[in-house]
Amino acid sequence: MSHPATDGRREETNSWRTRLYVIIFEADTPAGKLFDVLLLIAILLSVLVVMCESVDSLEEEHRRLLVRAEWFFTLLFTLEYGVRIACARRPIRYIFSLYGIIDLLAILPTYLIALPILEGGPSTQRLAVIRALRLLRAFRIFKLAHMLSEATALRQAIWAARAKIAVFLSFVLIAVVIVGSAMHLIEGGDIDSPGQDVDTGFDSIPESMYWAIVTMTTVGYGDVSPTTGLGKTLAACMMVLGYCMIIVPTGIVSAELANASGTPPTTQVCPECMAEGHDGDALHCKYCGGKL
Amino acid sequence: MSHPATDGRREETNSWRTRLYVIIFEADTPAGKLFDVLLLIAILLSVLVVMCESVDSLEEEHRRLLVRAEWFFTLLFTLEYGVRIACARRPIRYIFSLYGIIDLLAILPTYLIALPILEGGPSTQRLAVIRALRLLRAFRIFKLAHMLSEATALRQAIWAARAKIAVFLSFVLIAVVIVGSAMHLIEGGDIDSPGQDVDTGFDSIPESMYWAIVTMTTVGYGDVSPTTGLGKTLAACMMVLGYCMIIVPTGIVSAELANASGTPPTTQVCPECMAEGHDGDALHCKYCGGKL
Amino acid sequence: MSHPATDGRREETNSWRTRLYVIIFEADTPAGKLFDVLLLIAILLSVLVVMCESVDSLEEEHRRLLVRAEWFFTLLFTLEYGVRIACARRPIRYIFSLYGIIDLLAILPTYLIALPILEGGPSTQRLAVIRALRLLRAFRIFKLAHMLSEATALRQAIWAARAKIAVFLSFVLIAVVIVGSAMHLIEGGDIDSPGQDVDTGFDSIPESMYWAIVTMTTVGYGDVSPTTGLGKTLAACMMVLGYCMIIVPTGIVSAELANASGTPPTTQVCPECMAEGHDGDALHCKYCGGKL
Amino acid sequence: MSHPATDGRREETNSWRTRLYVIIFEADTPAGKLFDVLLLIAILLSVLVVMCESVDSLEEEHRRLLVRAEWFFTLLFTLEYGVRIACARRPIRYIFSLYGIIDLLAILPTYLIALPILEGGPSTQRLAVIRALRLLRAFRIFKLAHMLSEATALRQAIWAARAKIAVFLSFVLIAVVIVGSAMHLIEGGDIDSPGQDVDTGFDSIPESMYWAIVTMTTVGYGDVSPTTGLGKTLAACMMVLGYCMIIVPTGIVSAELANASGTPPTTQVCPECMAEGHDGDALHCKYCGGKL
Repeated sequence: MSHPATDGRREETNSWRTRLYVIIFEADTPAGKLFDVLLLIAILLSVLVVMCESVDSLEEEHRRLLVRAEWFFTLLFTLEYGVRIACARRPIRYIFSLYGIIDLLAILPTYLIALPILEGGPSTQRLAVIRALRLLRAFRIFKLAHMLSEATALRQAIWAARAKIAVFLSFVLIAVVIVGSAMHLIEGGDIDSPGQDVDTGFDSIPESMYWAIVTMTTVGYGDVSPTTGLGKTLAACMMVLGYCMIIVPTGIVSAELANASGTPPTTQVCPECMAEGHDGDALHCKYCGGKL
Repeated sequence: MSHPATDGRREETNSWRTRLYVIIFEADTPAGKLFDVLLLIAILLSVLVVMCESVDSLEEEHRRLLVRAEWFFTLLFTLEYGVRIACARRPIRYIFSLYGIIDLLAILPTYLIALPILEGGPSTQRLAVIRALRLLRAFRIFKLAHMLSEATALRQAIWAARAKIAVFLSFVLIAVVIVGSAMHLIEGGDIDSPGQDVDTGFDSIPESMYWAIVTMTTVGYGDVSPTTGLGKTLAACMMVLGYCMIIVPTGIVSAELANASGTPPTTQVCPECMAEGHDGDALHCKYCGGKL
Repeated sequence: MSHPATDGRREETNSWRTRLYVIIFEADTPAGKLFDVLLLIAILLSVLVVMCESVDSLEEEHRRLLVRAEWFFTLLFTLEYGVRIACARRPIRYIFSLYGIIDLLAILPTYLIALPILEGGPSTQRLAVIRALRLLRAFRIFKLAHMLSEATALRQAIWAARAKIAVFLSFVLIAVVIVGSAMHLIEGGDIDSPGQDVDTGFDSIPESMYWAIVTMTTVGYGDVSPTTGLGKTLAACMMVLGYCMIIVPTGIVSAELANASGTPPTTQVCPECMAEGHDGDALHCKYCGGKL
Repeated sequence: MSHPATDGRREETNSWRTRLYVIIFEADTPAGKLFDVLLLIAILLSVLVVMCESVDSLEEEHRRLLVRAEWFFTLLFTLEYGVRIACARRPIRYIFSLYGIIDLLAILPTYLIALPILEGGPSTQRLAVIRALRLLRAFRIFKLAHMLSEATALRQAIWAARAKIAVFLSFVLIAVVIVGSAMHLIEGGDIDSPGQDVDTGFDSIPESMYWAIVTMTTVGYGDVSPTTGLGKTLAACMMVLGYCMIIVPTGIVSAELANASGTPPTTQVCPECMAEGHDGDALHCKYCGGKL
């Protein structure tokens, strides 16, 4: 979105809408930065309230305080949502943007609970956790500090390695399907008498694939584990494979980051000998001594 | 296999066999790419059908649909298998190749179940999961996109590090045998009265080695864990060893990848001796001394 | 702190206070090094005594020996604490420094237990484990050996990567909150009848976040694990995410360390402007253009 | 040990002792390589026999075969041990070397079981697993192939990083002691009534340290896990710490290996312009074009 303040052809320049727009949607001015920090604190507090509500003991003791806090934040975010629509240059576009939908979803649950029909409906109340999605706005805070360049470097390294990571992930998924199917064949109970046999955790291929992912990522809950000798042997092979395979993506991103940060970004050319590759702080050409 | 279309000495050039061969076995032409993509989708769907069949609740509800889908894919893959044999320049060679055997194994189970003798045999029905092996054909899809070069880079890095990885794996295996034996000695129950004592999970060396692999790869199911003080001490040492040892292969592949991608891509050619591979800061050819 | 021995304007130079100060607070002289090593051994032994006291069987057998050893180390550390206050140039500053508070906390518990009011109070006795914090003094030992430069290199690499690590950790925490909330929604029991339903381990958002951290760091205790199909699917996605995400910080620090150690240590000084930091292949000073 | 064959001042040169010495203790000659490979196969088979003996079902079925195989390998290794002593130039030195002691320990258990006094003693029989230590001889096999240089590169990288790894490990151990003590304080049961309370797994500091190591290395058995809110919070912090800390040693070794393999070992200097840093395959100076 272009900055409306620099767009002199519109009559509402410097009007309240433009000023609100700069504060709410941008983070370059001091007021905009302050708004973003205050909004982040409000989101963190509202998430904390939802967390406390989910703990039974806390909810019973401080029910009144928590309900009031929830209504306070709901009204605050409703106000913010209204102002965003009011001052956005293209309100429809904001409403159907990712953040617009999250902002709406974050305030809806509280109103839905208040409706007489749904009163006491537990599933509605629990929807309040959708508010946690608003934490994604925290990524805006990176615009405030020098973290932006760091976050950009990370994103670029991951982006540069996307094809390698895709190859790696597809290899992992194929291994998960094949090993999961094999374990279902080895460890799965007798399928003639379903219902009688004990659930070994390998009764269907999706369950075996869940086990394969738990094992390959070295999480290893232990809620499902092989019991037969052949199953244990295959599991051991898969663990060694998973243990070795973490190497590959690690090496990929390491190499990307090492390359990214090792390349000097100076493109200065010596006017006399046309030599390149000078350091950022060089005043003279390091080959011919000419002034840069 | 050389491209038969460029092989003008055979009369069947441009015949239906050659055209089918180009479509089915190669991926350079638009028709070949389309065939590979469609085949991959069919494989994915057939694997999905086998997965659904393994889930009891789904199987009971949609038994009819699943059986029909299985027969549809079996007949489709049988047709594909027949066409592959028909148009391959050396059918015998294809039949006994890895993919040829997998293709055959993928269609056999459905026919075996249909035989009157084996009807209802659960172990036969479950063999349908062999079809998951066909997912290996998914690696052909990498030929379609620019992922090929990425996959090649990964394979080369792993291949270059194969000797180091072999040294590392043999070290891991020796450690697993020695620590597994030691834990059997420490934690294994009294072998005088087998059958009476509780199964501690360390009753035989293979079981202890299974535990050692589960621990060293940091999977840690918890189905087997030491109970004595000495066993816990040894286990703790082994965990720290396994935690530290993941470093070694990671470092190896990182260094390989960094070296591989760190090679400067200077494409300068010496005007006198036509040699390549000069450094970015070279002024003279390093082979003949000619000015670059 | 400046070295008082080189500060000739004070009359207490070479007095007992200065000599004690050099021995106790510094590690450059042989006496200072000896003191640090002996102190470290005393701390290790005292921690060992506290450990033995916490083991019931050992405590019952050797109660007398352990009590005596505890009093011996308590008196020893009290003496050391007194001498440190006596010879410190700014006693108040030492008392309220981090190490001063730890030194005080390490000796307090034994005295508190001896008080008649608190006699037999188990929580007081157990406070003796605070003494383990004194192990932090072990980091001083790095000053003694050539490990100092290694520790410095590590600290610098971590410090240089602090912004990237902060971005990474905030991403992890936001993912933990969102996934934890989602799992509470999916796996949490019916909140209408609290007390009746089984504790699934997802009964509150903080508990779900605990599970999310256990899963994402690939620890995977298995005390809490999803049981529904949707929960298992989400858990599997999170595991793959956590498995892939360990790449990012690893790559960051690898690149930092590679860069740090990759900097060429050229010590060439320009004969004209005395500037340093030239590249290995520089022919002219990059600041003044003078021939190197 | 110097090669006795090149030591012409001894009369037993080319005698049977020298020839046996060359075959048994060295791996440079074809006979020596063959001996090492055969010995390795014999060790692997003997370890396999011990493994089979430890499995109850196998041991009952093939008791006779296993006993015979064990005696065969014991006599074979006794013969080898005797020949090693006979042909070693300094027999005493060999007997008290690491490999000499392992060789002796590997044959002792079988003889001890045969003694009438110890007959049927299970602990003696199980000592046969000591034979697994002989697998360490497998590292000699690296002398046979080109793996030697790879193994050397790995050893050098680890050796170069030894100070950094020591700093890292001491940091890990201090963290384990402090967090273990803290968890004992938080999760440990009431120590007033030992014997009554349930064993939470945090009843003593060593047990808490075992938990801390299991958690920090991300193994996570789940046999011991925190139950209180404060304990879970501390555990979550420790997991994130352990998850982040694996970075440090990985980065260290990566950087060491990258440096080791990235540094060009050419020290050639151009005789005309004295420039350095030429590639290994350079024939002319890349700066002035002079012949190297």
